[in-house]
Amino acid sequence: MAGKVFFSVSMSLDGFIAPESSEELMGQQWMELQRWAFRQRHFRENLKLGEGGEEGRDNDILRETFERTGASVMGKRMFDAGEQMWPEEPPFHTPVFVLTHEKRDPWERSGGTTFNFVNDGIELALDQARAAAGDRDVRIAGGAQAIVQYLNAGLIDEFHVALSPVLFGSGIRLFEDVDDSRVALELIRSESSSMATHLDYAVHPR
Amino acid sequence: MAGKVFFSVSMSLDGFIAPESSEELMGQQWMELQRWAFRQRHFRENLKLGEGGEEGRDNDILRETFERTGASVMGKRMFDAGEQMWPEEPPFHTPVFVLTHEKRDPWERSGGTTFNFVNDGIELALDQARAAAGDRDVRIAGGAQAIVQYLNAGLIDEFHVALSPVLFGSGIRLFEDVDDSRVALELIRSESSSMATHLDYAVHPR
Repeated sequence: MAGKVFFSVSMSLDGFIAPESSEELMGQQWMELQRWAFRQRHFRENLKLGEGGEEGRDNDILRETFERTGASVMGKRMFDAGEQMWPEEPPFHTPVFVLTHEKRDPWERSGGTTFNFVNDGIELALDQARAAAGDRDVRIAGGAQAIVQYLNAGLIDEFHVALSPVLFGSGIRLFEDVDDSRVALELIRSESSSMATHLDYAVHPR
Repeated sequence: MAGKVFFSVSMSLDGFIAPESSEELMGQQWMELQRWAFRQRHFRENLKLGEGGEEGRDNDILRETFERTGASVMGKRMFDAGEQMWPEEPPFHTPVFVLTHEKRDPWERSGGTTFNFVNDGIELALDQARAAAGDRDVRIAGGAQAIVQYLNAGLIDEFHVALSPVLFGSGIRLFEDVDDSRVALELIRSESSSMATHLDYAVHPR
């Protein structure tokens, strides 16, 4: 049986998932948005941030998200920013399909991550990701533009938002360009820790 | 002991609390945003929408919000829209202070609601509301602009967001003009029903 297509992001209460420019990616607000994740053991291990970390429900949620993912799809901006930030062994450990106009050979990294550069649009990229994922799920890793393209095309089955108790005021909004006339949501799970509210929605056509 | 100053709104997952124009106030999206509330017994009774309605946790939350409120403050736009929509006996049953440049005598309605028109700015309006509320709380009823003015002035103690599983795509954003450099949030309660996720935050200075 084929897996699902999902995304999972940390969002501020005012709807932002990233600062405007990637230079601010390590800024204070960004750290606050991601703070719930940075403290977790799984996150720290996976990004080679060092030993230790918490092991409660927040950690379980990160680990489950990682384990369900058989392949990821991401936009070119996210890849460009990540290329500077990910460790030698990137945190994916699966095939990753990068949406781009650039022609480039697959880039194999240690730990099982291979970046594949796909020039044929979001649907064919997803087909390749599905084939690579087998019976595991495909994660649309980001950024907002890639996520919303898949949402508007009706290709997302469900998603997870970790709602952080922060206000960004500016930046990149997750749902800025969503076609609200086509997307209906159903809350399928919610759970709060002291650091974030985890919300899972199923996506239905309207 | 003086009461708290709070607000309580229904917000779409993409951060909107109202449609762009008040003519759309009874449109489909707006109804979806408020659907969790419209079904509740307390809401129906209070807006004279008829008998019946649900009596679960969503209803309790609406009733508790009503009961804690000793006075409300609202912007002129909200008053203008509400004036057309509220029943003969408006749903407040307390003094209401309307922020406006217009000079107008207090307008007393049946059921204990008196609208007072305040021309001296948000702080003096709040002082009057506090005095009227006694040891109950003051609710900043809306709209977004009034709420954000109080937030940015450091005058909100806590707030409740009923996050509805809908995407609006456009409209009036709750936090559009928030000064994120001054406002820190702490999640103090969260709870989901099948229709909304109730989130309560305490507001702290940064």
